[in-house]
Amino acid sequence: MTTSPLTPAGLLPTLPGRAYTDPETFRREQESIFEARWFCAVRAGDLLTPGSFRTVTVGRESVLITRARDGALRAFLNVCRHRGARLCTEESGQVRRNLRCPYHAWTYALDGRLVAAPNLRDLPGLDRSAYGLVDVALREWMGYAWVCLAEEPPSFDETVVGSVASRLGDADAVGRYRPEDLVLGRRIGYDVRANWKLIVENFMECYHCATIHPELVAVLPEFAGGYAAQSQVGHGAEFAAGAEGFTVDGGPGFGRLPGLADEQDRRYFAATVRPQVFLNLVPDHVILHRMFPLAADLTRVECDWLYAAEVIDAGADVSSSVELFHRVNEQDFAACERTQLGMHSRAYGRGGVLVPTEHHITEFHRWVLGLLA
Amino acid sequence: MTTSPLTPAGLLPTLPGRAYTDPETFRREQESIFEARWFCAVRAGDLLTPGSFRTVTVGRESVLITRARDGALRAFLNVCRHRGARLCTEESGQVRRNLRCPYHAWTYALDGRLVAAPNLRDLPGLDRSAYGLVDVALREWMGYAWVCLAEEPPSFDETVVGSVASRLGDADAVGRYRPEDLVLGRRIGYDVRANWKLIVENFMECYHCATIHPELVAVLPEFAGGYAAQSQVGHGAEFAAGAEGFTVDGGPGFGRLPGLADEQDRRYFAATVRPQVFLNLVPDHVILHRMFPLAADLTRVECDWLYAAEVIDAGADVSSSVELFHRVNEQDFAACERTQLGMHSRAYGRGGVLVPTEHHITEFHRWVLGLLA
Amino acid sequence: MTTSPLTPAGLLPTLPGRAYTDPETFRREQESIFEARWFCAVRAGDLLTPGSFRTVTVGRESVLITRARDGALRAFLNVCRHRGARLCTEESGQVRRNLRCPYHAWTYALDGRLVAAPNLRDLPGLDRSAYGLVDVALREWMGYAWVCLAEEPPSFDETVVGSVASRLGDADAVGRYRPEDLVLGRRIGYDVRANWKLIVENFMECYHCATIHPELVAVLPEFAGGYAAQSQVGHGAEFAAGAEGFTVDGGPGFGRLPGLADEQDRRYFAATVRPQVFLNLVPDHVILHRMFPLAADLTRVECDWLYAAEVIDAGADVSSSVELFHRVNEQDFAACERTQLGMHSRAYGRGGVLVPTEHHITEFHRWVLGLLA
Repeated sequence: MTTSPLTPAGLLPTLPGRAYTDPETFRREQESIFEARWFCAVRAGDLLTPGSFRTVTVGRESVLITRARDGALRAFLNVCRHRGARLCTEESGQVRRNLRCPYHAWTYALDGRLVAAPNLRDLPGLDRSAYGLVDVALREWMGYAWVCLAEEPPSFDETVVGSVASRLGDADAVGRYRPEDLVLGRRIGYDVRANWKLIVENFMECYHCATIHPELVAVLPEFAGGYAAQSQVGHGAEFAAGAEGFTVDGGPGFGRLPGLADEQDRRYFAATVRPQVFLNLVPDHVILHRMFPLAADLTRVECDWLYAAEVIDAGADVSSSVELFHRVNEQDFAACERTQLGMHSRAYGRGGVLVPTEHHITEFHRWVLGLLA
Repeated sequence: MTTSPLTPAGLLPTLPGRAYTDPETFRREQESIFEARWFCAVRAGDLLTPGSFRTVTVGRESVLITRARDGALRAFLNVCRHRGARLCTEESGQVRRNLRCPYHAWTYALDGRLVAAPNLRDLPGLDRSAYGLVDVALREWMGYAWVCLAEEPPSFDETVVGSVASRLGDADAVGRYRPEDLVLGRRIGYDVRANWKLIVENFMECYHCATIHPELVAVLPEFAGGYAAQSQVGHGAEFAAGAEGFTVDGGPGFGRLPGLADEQDRRYFAATVRPQVFLNLVPDHVILHRMFPLAADLTRVECDWLYAAEVIDAGADVSSSVELFHRVNEQDFAACERTQLGMHSRAYGRGGVLVPTEHHITEFHRWVLGLLA
Repeated sequence: MTTSPLTPAGLLPTLPGRAYTDPETFRREQESIFEARWFCAVRAGDLLTPGSFRTVTVGRESVLITRARDGALRAFLNVCRHRGARLCTEESGQVRRNLRCPYHAWTYALDGRLVAAPNLRDLPGLDRSAYGLVDVALREWMGYAWVCLAEEPPSFDETVVGSVASRLGDADAVGRYRPEDLVLGRRIGYDVRANWKLIVENFMECYHCATIHPELVAVLPEFAGGYAAQSQVGHGAEFAAGAEGFTVDGGPGFGRLPGLADEQDRRYFAATVRPQVFLNLVPDHVILHRMFPLAADLTRVECDWLYAAEVIDAGADVSSSVELFHRVNEQDFAACERTQLGMHSRAYGRGGVLVPTEHHITEFHRWVLGLLA
């Protein structure tokens, strides 16, 4: 890549260090971002049968996601309406028919309705519908359940689907990978001692690629130049001539996913789906990161590697493609943790600087500040 | 039990979730409740000989309780008057004659008087009586030392003795068990990750008994109906026909304590002695819980099983009676910890509801709010 | 020692307990004391060759100290000027030529100048000198690098050198030990769960010596009287007749350091170099404590035992002299931790008292309060 999409107009400022360390700022982000926007919670394929459930931390809430009798996914606050016990404390599980609170046996259907409780005959006037589980909005897309804790959720089509389309420059770009039909090949969780915004900023730029990602740069040589695929609409980074696939050793991956356009072959596309998803598209698999911000300086990241069902069904060895981005993850998160340590310093009191290949991060900062305003 | 003492007039509200999580609320409870009311600190029998001492956390203070030369128990703030060192850091111990601060050797008699210090000759005008240990009010009852950190303690007879009497409906009810003559058979400590008020509320109601206490309900079948002994004045729950004693296997316990009235036989009585004691009376033993609230979400509970001296002296095996309430404790505290998890949720922002068999908990809430006002 | 330099005019007050526990007070101390005064950071001898570095916590900052090409020591805030990553996360290390940020490869010379960064050609107008590492003032004295984070550091000669001279009553007293030429024989680190001011107060007085320091008093019998060397200008405590050296077993130490005055032989001198250094001088070695206050109730102490180069070069066994003050340290820090426990008590709400042999501590309190005002 020899030409830059940006004029090198100088350095732009970052956010001040306090934005990455202040517990009160983080509380406001939980309230105004993670509990107010669409949040990618769980892979739908993790809940295959009616009665299966998952619990997930969204902002400061534990959310319970169930597969109901009718096959649909439903989401609720994971709290009994009687005395407030957490209904399900396990990360995942399976019930036979209903969700029963283990404290006083108030019992809810998989769609949240209160269906039974001891001594309810003593309360003949009770309006049961007023004591069902508290509903949480849920949408399925790309094979994931996205939830929103807001009373009036923002438009899913605009803020999620549309943002990916405009990032990739094509409304159908992601759809051609059929992510909803892919199957989980590997999931790795990372506990990163860094603010979630440092992780977003890291994902958005490639100025660090030459320094910390030798394996990635070997497959995507243009990354050595420091320009992120994400700084240009619709740009995909081309594989190195010698790379047969998106693997740690340059070996072949698996067959090109059926619906892809030719210009999607042998290329890596990436998109940040705000606030907490990173999407990575290569011809034979999709990598999706979900972030779970837990504290100003702690973020849980779950990374899924998704493959065609035939690949997984055949028992193929996915480790050389998993290993490539697993190394990238470890390299990135180490850098983010090192950066978190500097956020407290007076040297970063007014923040640092963005070089031209990082200038597009400014737009992310504006988005965050706009939501907190 | 087939009739309810309460008209099912509907649901009553609980306290809001914040009451169980807010550190500032907890600080006010420490100040206005645990450091202001009578607090059951230690078993007198744990300090048998002059010079024996115990240290115990009362509210935010370490309190030192000693057996003085004259055989009386005395309580002090566990702080040297010179430079503030904690006098005794061990939970229990024995001194020969005096309490000597290990830092600069200021030395106090077992009744708190300053009796020696190095170089005191340099301070000829020193009024030693002004530098004795800070006294804490102490009363003995039921074989326990109760202390009060208030400058002007409330009436012990009204707030402790009287409250038990009115709960049990008989001024002599507890006295007939002669708890001061009983001997410790077993003590088990529990670190419960829940607010102390959740533990009180749990102890006060039996709506959960059928769900989580199978062993208890087997001995006390009326508990299956959800009505707590405590919701009625003077009511004792009757043992199951097949239960020979208050044991985990229904086997016989030990002989009926000598002074009991006939209506106290084959029955379980319970009382909450606010703010931090649970009293359980059965014909052959007494179980007493002391709570030590340590944080908004952390409470230490010490549970004593007390038996007739002859039982303990004979080396009888008390495990089948201990095991019954030990299981109840573990079941209850797990429920309280599960409930603590829900207190942060927006679903519990305005609290939950009390069913009719829990309505008497409202009076506890009023008592707490009254003391904090 | 039979006469006191102080008239026993009674008791003086200490600081209130809150001064030792309040996080906000500690924050102000970090700002106004440890980040504003000269702070003894590292032993210069720990950075022998150009390219060697040390990182050290000064107040709330990580400071990077390097030995530059020209042989001089330099200090910087340990933060990359680009995106704020911590440059060096190790406690010590060695670079070949430059300091290179491991995130985006911004590269700084050992004197802090920005010398390279990827794609800097895109920023033709960049003033590199504006993006060098942030300088920290540094002075060398007694073989240590002292740093100051203040924009305008106070006078080193007055606040450090002069304060030691006036404490020892002689501008040349410390110089005769040639501490800059001594060599580290042993270093022991202690994590003390106590406020730094308790550690200073403990070091300043000897009223506790008879109680907790039997080995020290055996060598310095006058300490049994409770009078600290530090309560008198220029006073050195004389060795016991039977003590051949300043050792745990009274055995001989090593030869008297060459430049000492006769009145410095067979004597122990001590000085507190505010805010965080304790200096101990005996004829054959120097012991220097550096404190690193980390929280209101946590202080890291590093203690160095320094000997003549010939002693260390000859491989002499220094353990009997190290063991003496190591025991003193453990005894003192245990006392400070015990005292920290009492600082929260209402019994210490208005503080405790200083006996006449502790009265000089009042001046330290005034100094602290003056800097916080």
